Amino acid sequence: MARPLPREISLGELIERFGGELAGGQPGQTVRRLASLAAARQGDLGFLSAARHRAEAAGTGASAVIVTPGLADALPAGTARILVPDPYAHFAAVARWFAQMLEPPPPSPPIHPSASIDPSASIAANVSIGAHAVIEAGAQVGEGASIGAGCFVGREVRVGAGTRLHPGVSVYHDCIVGARCIVHAGSVIGSDGFGFAREAGRWAKIPQLGAVVIGDEVEIGSNCSIDRGALEDTVIGDGCKLDNLIQIGHNVVIGEHTALAGCVGVAGSARIGRRCMIGGSAGILGHLEICDDVVISAMSLVTRSIRQPGFYSGVFPLMDNAGWEKAAATLRQLPGLRTRLRRLERDAAGVGGAPGESAQQDNSIDPKD
Amino acid sequence: MARPLPREISLGELIERFGGELAGGQPGQTVRRLASLAAARQGDLGFLSAARHRAEAAGTGASAVIVTPGLADALPAGTARILVPDPYAHFAAVARWFAQMLEPPPPSPPIHPSASIDPSASIAANVSIGAHAVIEAGAQVGEGASIGAGCFVGREVRVGAGTRLHPGVSVYHDCIVGARCIVHAGSVIGSDGFGFAREAGRWAKIPQLGAVVIGDEVEIGSNCSIDRGALEDTVIGDGCKLDNLIQIGHNVVIGEHTALAGCVGVAGSARIGRRCMIGGSAGILGHLEICDDVVISAMSLVTRSIRQPGFYSGVFPLMDNAGWEKAAATLRQLPGLRTRLRRLERDAAGVGGAPGESAQQDNSIDPKD
Amino acid sequence: MARPLPREISLGELIERFGGELAGGQPGQTVRRLASLAAARQGDLGFLSAARHRAEAAGTGASAVIVTPGLADALPAGTARILVPDPYAHFAAVARWFAQMLEPPPPSPPIHPSASIDPSASIAANVSIGAHAVIEAGAQVGEGASIGAGCFVGREVRVGAGTRLHPGVSVYHDCIVGARCIVHAGSVIGSDGFGFAREAGRWAKIPQLGAVVIGDEVEIGSNCSIDRGALEDTVIGDGCKLDNLIQIGHNVVIGEHTALAGCVGVAGSARIGRRCMIGGSAGILGHLEICDDVVISAMSLVTRSIRQPGFYSGVFPLMDNAGWEKAAATLRQLPGLRTRLRRLERDAAGVGGAPGESAQQDNSIDPKD
Repeated sequence: MARPLPREISLGELIERFGGELAGGQPGQTVRRLASLAAARQGDLGFLSAARHRAEAAGTGASAVIVTPGLADALPAGTARILVPDPYAHFAAVARWFAQMLEPPPPSPPIHPSASIDPSASIAANVSIGAHAVIEAGAQVGEGASIGAGCFVGREVRVGAGTRLHPGVSVYHDCIVGARCIVHAGSVIGSDGFGFAREAGRWAKIPQLGAVVIGDEVEIGSNCSIDRGALEDTVIGDGCKLDNLIQIGHNVVIGEHTALAGCVGVAGSARIGRRCMIGGSAGILGHLEICDDVVISAMSLVTRSIRQPGFYSGVFPLMDNAGWEKAAATLRQLPGLRTRLRRLERDAAGVGGAPGESAQQDNSIDPKD
Repeated sequence: MARPLPREISLGELIERFGGELAGGQPGQTVRRLASLAAARQGDLGFLSAARHRAEAAGTGASAVIVTPGLADALPAGTARILVPDPYAHFAAVARWFAQMLEPPPPSPPIHPSASIDPSASIAANVSIGAHAVIEAGAQVGEGASIGAGCFVGREVRVGAGTRLHPGVSVYHDCIVGARCIVHAGSVIGSDGFGFAREAGRWAKIPQLGAVVIGDEVEIGSNCSIDRGALEDTVIGDGCKLDNLIQIGHNVVIGEHTALAGCVGVAGSARIGRRCMIGGSAGILGHLEICDDVVISAMSLVTRSIRQPGFYSGVFPLMDNAGWEKAAATLRQLPGLRTRLRRLERDAAGVGGAPGESAQQDNSIDPKD
Repeated sequence: MARPLPREISLGELIERFGGELAGGQPGQTVRRLASLAAARQGDLGFLSAARHRAEAAGTGASAVIVTPGLADALPAGTARILVPDPYAHFAAVARWFAQMLEPPPPSPPIHPSASIDPSASIAANVSIGAHAVIEAGAQVGEGASIGAGCFVGREVRVGAGTRLHPGVSVYHDCIVGARCIVHAGSVIGSDGFGFAREAGRWAKIPQLGAVVIGDEVEIGSNCSIDRGALEDTVIGDGCKLDNLIQIGHNVVIGEHTALAGCVGVAGSARIGRRCMIGGSAGILGHLEICDDVVISAMSLVTRSIRQPGFYSGVFPLMDNAGWEKAAATLRQLPGLRTRLRRLERDAAGVGGAPGESAQQDNSIDPKD
């Protein structure tokens, strides 16, 4: 559950700060916590943005709810309403303010005495560095950045202003993390790309001499692995959001404001456009290009370049296991079934060929590719 | 290989402790190590629970074997037998006892001097804390818990009695880990959920104000990521077992005694029932419900709620690559093939429509959903 | 971008060291950096190994390029050429030499004073140990090995000569890492295998008493999880290469020189042969065997043993989402379609059965299995 704020917030103060129109309540009424409609109790502030949540709205215990005028009647009579056009965005802004108030004060001293900081590293003002963190030679940490306990910041790394590395993040030498980024615990930036040449049945290592360059306002979840480039850099554009346990291969380039859900794997040298959304556990093969504004379904594998914005999928549908076994067995016979169907059509049509074959190109993903 | 125990254990002592009936051996005979039948040597104790292991049983070098009366004749003449009804469960109990004897004594001093422990943290009796671990303000560590080297235990975290965090585990502020849990190295509990609102082509962060609540007797493998809730908590029920590299999104609720194999991804706000088994690399989309006692095959994607206990699958079958290419190409044409088949049936049947179409609903996963 | 070397390297020195024939340049010309043809500038050395890169070659700014005689004319007139039979292997060798020159000198002192090293551990000559690393009782670290900051090396672990553990690697007790290995940040070696017995609706833990044994010249990417065996050991053969975020279950045995791409999951007790290549995000079920020289496509699930070398796939092809929805819906009806096709054939052929059914076994993966 969200924690209560250290002080009561009046609805009047909320409206003064964030706008909206008060209905069914008094400006002096207060809230101290954010909550979902279903879990909200006295003193909580919730939001209602879609008609499908009417049932929860009708039973909510929230003291006040951010809501559109059109849905205001879905709430219990005694609930105060803050009427706004976009309750979710409004709530998000309120939540960011609440979250700031819930942040603990910076540690004192801001740089833990157990941190190991090379004398040649450059640490800007208002930086906090946690216990047992390591900052190596020549690294630069920008103003207001926060380096968590046990982080490793390698030689000549640059961490931008206001960026936060949560505990146990490792950034290998020469990599760059932009400003106002968040990197969650256990993520690794700059490990070697998977580059080997086969020589007489063995794998000879190709040194990975590039780095990783991460733009501004990027968020990276926990336990991600972002490999350094072989010769050039692996690049994550401004505003990208990566969930947890994501693999980014060497030389990958991701455009601005693209979001990747958990467990995605992107193979080496793939290029992903701007504003794409890649579903959880999806995969993207190496050396291909995905244009801007592409959406990929969860657990789909992109095996060819995609040159048209759009929504693409490739997932075996879930069935009860007995049905799946039959479908999977028949799938192996599918080319044979097609041949048999064509033969029947030919027999039915006489000598003139199967007219249905013209449907053959239907549903192809990108015939130009 | 399992290590040998520090002392010999007689078969008589084993039977006194765990039960069973001795056959073909003397109570004074001793064993010092557990081993599989195939690898066992003089002094080793093995088990035989299924007829399909008869070949390994016949050639085993084990000094003694835990076995059902019905399979006892599968063993070499000179092997001592401990006859029990359920050899695997019996062996598991013996193994837990052996494992205890193999545990090293607690470190001395139990709290490593390099650990960084906030004075306001509450550390119960018999707790061990490894080198370079960090325990932040207000955290509570229960009796007999063990915090590994380099772990991070955030503000106000509660770690239950008898719980063991292996090295390098991070638990973010306000999260709760129950009693007698095991969390393996590198796992992260409480990183931010993946919550962003799209605003003018950019992603605005939704603060993640909830926490993670983990029940008692939960085991979490290495390098897992369990995100905190947005407003409410992410909840893992008592007795759940998670393998390695598992992603649990924000607000997920998992019922008691559910097991998830390695590399599973569960998207935000999904609810999984009790006693479910989720196969390796499977995925579960967000905001859906899976009822109790559901089994999901490896690498299957759950795209809709499941309301009936049962066994569900959705995996493209493995083929030689040439066969796969043909099947995959034909798959794109499948709707066209169906149309052509219907046309042939209609032509064959005259005007009256295709009777076969009634089979259309076969194999659907849950028509009610 | 790759860093420039600390000194200029003449083409004459390069040819003296690595061979090749100089064309269109002077032995006294120098280079200081490696680069791709597309990004190369004055002072950079590139390579050209395939005709498909002719366009980049024609526009390259590289001072010198390693190239086959047959492709030498693809380069601009003023570019120096080093003619060799295999430019990629040649370049890889040069890159390894450049990488050595770019390595920083070993830290001084080589063993960081904040590392926590048990007095009973055995540390060979020329070992470096990073800040806050932990080496437990009885561990052995071989000559020239390098243990990164914050690594955990458990009781009785053996780390071979020349092996490098990057920051934050955890190796649990009794595990063995061979010589000249590289393990990237955050990887965990020796966490407990996923072994539980179901007892009355609960999971009882099976102690994991084996260990992990990793051969020589193995590279393991970042954030991998390699579980210890239940009774015997999990074994990774010499020369294997693992990418990032890979899960290896307990008792798995992987043969020499096999490569696994990112996000692969291998379930318990699987045995993989030598020189196999497993594509990214692929899965391998437990207790099965894959023979030598097998290639598995990305995101394919191996559900049965594979006894013939070859290339195997099982992936749902990517489609635009509307096409996918139709194909997925029809897939559920596939067994019904087959029945209807057979009926049509029977009707067309008269009483004598459907001749097309003989195609039924086509495309099966391994009929002997």
